[in-house]
Amino acid sequence: MRDLALYELIEKSLKEDVGTGDITTLSTIPADKKAKGRFLAKENGVLCGMDVCRAVFDFVDPTVVFIAHATDGAAVKKGDVLAEISGNARSILTGERLSLNLLQHMSGIATRTAEAVEKVAGTKARIADTRKTTPGLRVLEKYAVKCGGGSNHRFNLADGVLIKDNHIRAAGSITAAVTMARANIPHTLKIEVEVESFPELEEALAAGADIIMLDNMSCADMKKAVSLVAGRALTEASGNMGERDLREVAETGVDIISIGALTHSVKALDISLKFEF
Amino acid sequence: MRDLALYELIEKSLKEDVGTGDITTLSTIPADKKAKGRFLAKENGVLCGMDVCRAVFDFVDPTVVFIAHATDGAAVKKGDVLAEISGNARSILTGERLSLNLLQHMSGIATRTAEAVEKVAGTKARIADTRKTTPGLRVLEKYAVKCGGGSNHRFNLADGVLIKDNHIRAAGSITAAVTMARANIPHTLKIEVEVESFPELEEALAAGADIIMLDNMSCADMKKAVSLVAGRALTEASGNMGERDLREVAETGVDIISIGALTHSVKALDISLKFEF
Amino acid sequence: MRDLALYELIEKSLKEDVGTGDITTLSTIPADKKAKGRFLAKENGVLCGMDVCRAVFDFVDPTVVFIAHATDGAAVKKGDVLAEISGNARSILTGERLSLNLLQHMSGIATRTAEAVEKVAGTKARIADTRKTTPGLRVLEKYAVKCGGGSNHRFNLADGVLIKDNHIRAAGSITAAVTMARANIPHTLKIEVEVESFPELEEALAAGADIIMLDNMSCADMKKAVSLVAGRALTEASGNMGERDLREVAETGVDIISIGALTHSVKALDISLKFEF
Amino acid sequence: MRDLALYELIEKSLKEDVGTGDITTLSTIPADKKAKGRFLAKENGVLCGMDVCRAVFDFVDPTVVFIAHATDGAAVKKGDVLAEISGNARSILTGERLSLNLLQHMSGIATRTAEAVEKVAGTKARIADTRKTTPGLRVLEKYAVKCGGGSNHRFNLADGVLIKDNHIRAAGSITAAVTMARANIPHTLKIEVEVESFPELEEALAAGADIIMLDNMSCADMKKAVSLVAGRALTEASGNMGERDLREVAETGVDIISIGALTHSVKALDISLKFEF
Amino acid sequence: MRDLALYELIEKSLKEDVGTGDITTLSTIPADKKAKGRFLAKENGVLCGMDVCRAVFDFVDPTVVFIAHATDGAAVKKGDVLAEISGNARSILTGERLSLNLLQHMSGIATRTAEAVEKVAGTKARIADTRKTTPGLRVLEKYAVKCGGGSNHRFNLADGVLIKDNHIRAAGSITAAVTMARANIPHTLKIEVEVESFPELEEALAAGADIIMLDNMSCADMKKAVSLVAGRALTEASGNMGERDLREVAETGVDIISIGALTHSVKALDISLKFEF
Amino acid sequence: MRDLALYELIEKSLKEDVGTGDITTLSTIPADKKAKGRFLAKENGVLCGMDVCRAVFDFVDPTVVFIAHATDGAAVKKGDVLAEISGNARSILTGERLSLNLLQHMSGIATRTAEAVEKVAGTKARIADTRKTTPGLRVLEKYAVKCGGGSNHRFNLADGVLIKDNHIRAAGSITAAVTMARANIPHTLKIEVEVESFPELEEALAAGADIIMLDNMSCADMKKAVSLVAGRALTEASGNMGERDLREVAETGVDIISIGALTHSVKALDISLKFEF
Repeated sequence: MRDLALYELIEKSLKEDVGTGDITTLSTIPADKKAKGRFLAKENGVLCGMDVCRAVFDFVDPTVVFIAHATDGAAVKKGDVLAEISGNARSILTGERLSLNLLQHMSGIATRTAEAVEKVAGTKARIADTRKTTPGLRVLEKYAVKCGGGSNHRFNLADGVLIKDNHIRAAGSITAAVTMARANIPHTLKIEVEVESFPELEEALAAGADIIMLDNMSCADMKKAVSLVAGRALTEASGNMGERDLREVAETGVDIISIGALTHSVKALDISLKFEF
Repeated sequence: MRDLALYELIEKSLKEDVGTGDITTLSTIPADKKAKGRFLAKENGVLCGMDVCRAVFDFVDPTVVFIAHATDGAAVKKGDVLAEISGNARSILTGERLSLNLLQHMSGIATRTAEAVEKVAGTKARIADTRKTTPGLRVLEKYAVKCGGGSNHRFNLADGVLIKDNHIRAAGSITAAVTMARANIPHTLKIEVEVESFPELEEALAAGADIIMLDNMSCADMKKAVSLVAGRALTEASGNMGERDLREVAETGVDIISIGALTHSVKALDISLKFEF
Repeated sequence: MRDLALYELIEKSLKEDVGTGDITTLSTIPADKKAKGRFLAKENGVLCGMDVCRAVFDFVDPTVVFIAHATDGAAVKKGDVLAEISGNARSILTGERLSLNLLQHMSGIATRTAEAVEKVAGTKARIADTRKTTPGLRVLEKYAVKCGGGSNHRFNLADGVLIKDNHIRAAGSITAAVTMARANIPHTLKIEVEVESFPELEEALAAGADIIMLDNMSCADMKKAVSLVAGRALTEASGNMGERDLREVAETGVDIISIGALTHSVKALDISLKFEF
Repeated sequence: MRDLALYELIEKSLKEDVGTGDITTLSTIPADKKAKGRFLAKENGVLCGMDVCRAVFDFVDPTVVFIAHATDGAAVKKGDVLAEISGNARSILTGERLSLNLLQHMSGIATRTAEAVEKVAGTKARIADTRKTTPGLRVLEKYAVKCGGGSNHRFNLADGVLIKDNHIRAAGSITAAVTMARANIPHTLKIEVEVESFPELEEALAAGADIIMLDNMSCADMKKAVSLVAGRALTEASGNMGERDLREVAETGVDIISIGALTHSVKALDISLKFEF
Repeated sequence: MRDLALYELIEKSLKEDVGTGDITTLSTIPADKKAKGRFLAKENGVLCGMDVCRAVFDFVDPTVVFIAHATDGAAVKKGDVLAEISGNARSILTGERLSLNLLQHMSGIATRTAEAVEKVAGTKARIADTRKTTPGLRVLEKYAVKCGGGSNHRFNLADGVLIKDNHIRAAGSITAAVTMARANIPHTLKIEVEVESFPELEEALAAGADIIMLDNMSCADMKKAVSLVAGRALTEASGNMGERDLREVAETGVDIISIGALTHSVKALDISLKFEF
Repeated sequence: MRDLALYELIEKSLKEDVGTGDITTLSTIPADKKAKGRFLAKENGVLCGMDVCRAVFDFVDPTVVFIAHATDGAAVKKGDVLAEISGNARSILTGERLSLNLLQHMSGIATRTAEAVEKVAGTKARIADTRKTTPGLRVLEKYAVKCGGGSNHRFNLADGVLIKDNHIRAAGSITAAVTMARANIPHTLKIEVEVESFPELEEALAAGADIIMLDNMSCADMKKAVSLVAGRALTEASGNMGERDLREVAETGVDIISIGALTHSVKALDISLKFEF
């Protein structure tokens, strides 16, 4: 099935990287030259981006053969051969940089997510992303979070309601804001309310909030909040979670821990493409 | 002067973030509500992205007023007010996430670049970026590198010649590759050759290379290479420079140190937008 | 606040209508000729599209002045002056057909929706739309449904989960399908399950469905279903509702009645633009 | 032959319908699941859109097999199998809604057109469409009119000249307007003039109009007009023809009857897609 | 009135010319530097492109002031000041090349057209263009032809019917082809038939052709053809008219002479932009 | 390897030429009709555009077979069969005009370039193009220049530095301008300086210019300039070179002669497509 947004991203990114033509390659590599290459992991981590790599080369030249030796979400070790590629040398060189840039970025996110998931293992807490993603790459980044074992928060401002203090102040009260939202949104969406105190939490629950976001709370307060909610809504811990002790947060009993740093502070996973001409 | 690519990026990213509409805001905030906000630095670093932020809000709603209190490239301290914004509340909320995502990302790059530049201060080495950028954001990321005091390497495969081993093997020799490139490229471009040994270096110089890339060399070898080149070409240190001791590298006498990690492993600078309704 | 999708639609539609140029107008109307016009309702109905009309003319020529005399959602009567327009004659003639086509179409939807809403007045049932919209116009059509007093169902396949029999068969059971969905989707979304029998309904509730779609049921069966659900989930009546007695359906106690015909079988509301030169 | 505009429409409409991904299907249907389906007519009418459906599925996934059992323009009966489809289940589900929305809309237009054509059978009058089409769908809607046995009026403002009262007033007189148009337009285009009285009709003929539009005339007046024209130009009846007795209009001897309602007030033809997993 | 296609062309062409940024100007010219310039004719000719130039600068930077001293279609002499421009220096330099490239190209076409028109002055022949235009510039080129005093042929394959020998052979005969076309096309379009002999001409007239294209005929034959047609259709001389004696052709009495060379072999009119800093 | 920009150009140009459909062909040529055709040179010249033609037909209909009998850059003679084409008749007719328009234009450029190259044969001067290209066609036109044996100057304002008098005046001096550029540009680019006198030339050399543009100089002055430069930089002759005696210019010893007329004043090479049905 054609992935429309992915092909657009690839087209746009290739133009960005190739400009009016790869003058080095066009000058030195014959048009019918063949090449082979291997994608190698140069450090341990969680792989993400195999299908995206395949799509890059398929877009550049459908005759290039890309064979994956590992699948998205797999734990890979330094030295692993992740994929083999063969075909026209100019085509492979054209797709090289973009495929690596995406693969390393997405694997970096999956790896960091997996580390967070590992930390909360055994608790009921799910690790989730946020809207703090790289402009233009949100869908790929959220996919990488899932490959790392995490969950997705809403994809955009249309597919989730998150009432924050600005909305509450404008609406007059939490109750007013929830009521206004309920009346205006599709019945298929839940309503989440960000709270900073226990009275706010009680009001949100009374107003029928489906999810309570506990913003920048101490673990003690989160624990108390979870106990007060008592299953009437989902609870989500939020606010600089990239810097917090995730295990401790998870043990408060929250359902979701959302972490902006999963996608806003990414360390690329080191992967290289080695050629054999 | 209109920045075409920037407006396209903003439009595309806003669609990604807003989807079919910000249902929370549309439900709870009256259409004519006004708001004010302040961008605050929450850690020390080098600022980058003020004009981009302004463009985001200008795109969303030309009546929003954005007043910058610092300029791109400035060193900022935790607590500094970077900018003030005022106007229609819905408009400001719509642009909030995208402006912050870009500002934090670009400032993260500028900050890391400035750290690298600081390390080589007093040597003649310039810190440069690579093509290991985030797909779709290359121009902004390279701008951030300059704001951090670094230099740019080529922007794409059309505006620079970099002959690597694949090109050399396909062409037959360094001499052949350089000659073929010279005959095909605009006379406005220099030719850079990647070398891994001293004989290769000598051949590249003899063939007329304008720039020599010293790939993954020890500092001792780099020093020797610089001495052999003796000003006949520029020298560029490359290969995992994000993990190297930059001071030591710079003191070998190379002209340029190019570092992929400046753009492929970015830690966002923490900046927030605080509202006053 | 700029409405990105709307401007794209207007641009695309104007090109469709104008082609390489309005040769009649360019031949016969001087470039500096001024004109005035009035939009008149030629039958009773609910107005929708005033802001869209304004945007059409604003796009064509920002110097054209468009003054609305009624707002979207207003009941209008035959003979009412809906808006006045003045400015460059060529500009007005260029935007005339597109503005009317959109205004009549959207008002047609709002009018039909209002009729449906009127029929269920006093019951708790909300009238909702479906994905049976005109390709390219979904956002405008769903807006028209709201102007007519209706509610929106999900906007696309990403912002709502609706498990139908195909999904159930592929997953193995309702329970399996709901469980698989719950594990994969953002926690901000509800899960709706389409059922055709009471055992299916019971299984869906037990699996934790948030919304039960009652597909093509008799009113007696719907009544029984509502009673069985007993507030544990929302209930939605669906299936050729455009042909059903909506009052009778609403009186079964369902929460939502979704009607494809609101948007797939639209009768334009008759509105004209009369000029005074 | 590739139909550029059609593929653009399909791409745009799929994005509108799918958003960031069909989360229900992706959660519950395995990636390699196969499915079959049959398009069934659920009422009598004239079919239109088979090639468009094929293009939708070909766009979504070229491995899906679509076999039409009827061709555009065919009269179909309730219960007829219109087409069969087989292939990847996710792909078929992704294309389902868009293909049906287009098929039902276009068949609705063809059906209504065929009813109009039937009413004037035996007279020389052709049934034609107008520019009152759904924004974004004009080419498909005009194709549907032809499938229903009707004719097309001009496709846009560049491929036909239609001088209305505004043009006449701006130009000074019918004679002036026709003369100005003649001097400016390609010699491949005819000139049509809208008239509301017999003196206007005479002036238009004298000025060399190729087509006379009789706007909102009684049948008696149309008859007289046709007789006055006496073959010197084509005659076209226009103005709320969707509400008129078409037989009576046709019997006045006019050459063309143009009906906006063919495309602005469409009742979808009921067609469904039934799956077998 | 906004000219959609023109702005798209300008945007696309500016990207082509500017790439990722005008590095010379950005390096050497301060952001707030002002400049003035004058467009000067460096040879005699017919001007075309003033509004296009204005649009280029308006697009680049709406604060740039462009004052035209001559209008499209005017005869200009070597040394004439065509326009003055003032504003931000970077903006003016960014738009300089594109504005000149368009202005010189369009004025080149207008000038050549005017020469052709001058040659046939006093006859009834109109000079017309063809579809042999530069890809992407058709609308501008056809506008330039009109500025030079010429007429336009059809703009594209949808707004005119031209039956050539391929169509005739496929249809079986001229009569068949004309009949098939008449039945399928909007009634607003004329039918043109290309003939190479007198029997073909007679058949075309009998079939009701509105325009007869006389392809590659000697002047003697054209004269005879015009006499045979005797006003029953328009006559158009075609086929390498760029190389023919236009006066002689015009004196055969044909209505239209269409010349591909007007747009496929253009000599730019020499115009320069002189700056005063 | 997919050529992204080329396919975009083809798509855009086909829309321009086809509009809403080729009504003549659709009316008269059956959907399954086959055709063959031959591209014939009708005058001597240098061929350019074979791959572009192939891409046009491949885009229109991948089942059309296009067999080239000559390659880009080949000298062709009047009467030569350049290529053969066969397949669906409608598809071939749709691509006919665009393929010819591009082929004739590009071959016209290659032919004129080859004439210039021939004139300077035996000297060391290279013939180069400029930025005076047709908007939208720069990459194709620069490719044509290479096919004619010429060289390319920079492709856009980002991949070359050319310091002209405006930049010099704004910067304060040649030395200042060169220094500012050097500090800001990627180290992969050379710096070119336009000079009009010998003191300017000396200053440019002293500042480290890599290329000296000699603007509108007499041959005597160019000779002197070349002698003064003495190999310290490349020299480029520029300014109305389309009107100069190229042999004389080349014999001054300049390295490059850049000629705007190669691309701004193109005479199409006469090539036709003859059909056999």
